[in-house]
Amino acid sequence: MKQTELKVQGMTCQHCVKAIEKNVSKLDGVTEVAVNLANAQVDVSFDEHKTDEAAIRAAIVEEGYEVLN
Amino acid sequence: MKQTELKVQGMTCQHCVKAIEKNVSKLDGVTEVAVNLANAQVDVSFDEHKTDEAAIRAAIVEEGYEVLN
Repeated sequence: MKQTELKVQGMTCQHCVKAIEKNVSKLDGVTEVAVNLANAQVDVSFDEHKTDEAAIRAAIVEEGYEVLN
Repeated sequence: MKQTELKVQGMTCQHCVKAIEKNVSKLDGVTEVAVNLANAQVDVSFDEHKTDEAAIRAAIVEEGYEVLN
């Protein structure tokens, strides 16, 4: 199991939080998604044998947000 | 047919626009909803025999926004 902490730009409201949670959660191997709107941070726990950080980043970008780190 | 121009506080992104469009559009008698995010304005055309401005305002408030005028 791995964890990644991503700084995400463009999240403005709870709809944004839900959109990211939903799109990242549907990746096979993702076990937890915690979005902190105030800190612009998305913490994701995942099984590195099933997915990787690139896929997680892509799922966020796909929703229209930028990953800063 | 009537039209109302509402100033709405709290719309921050396209998800907010969609949420308001969807909830107002489903009122029977509403024929057009135009949301301008930059101007914080929601213009609604409706058949006054089927719905009224109070119902439109309520549909916006229900989504978590404030109508200022």
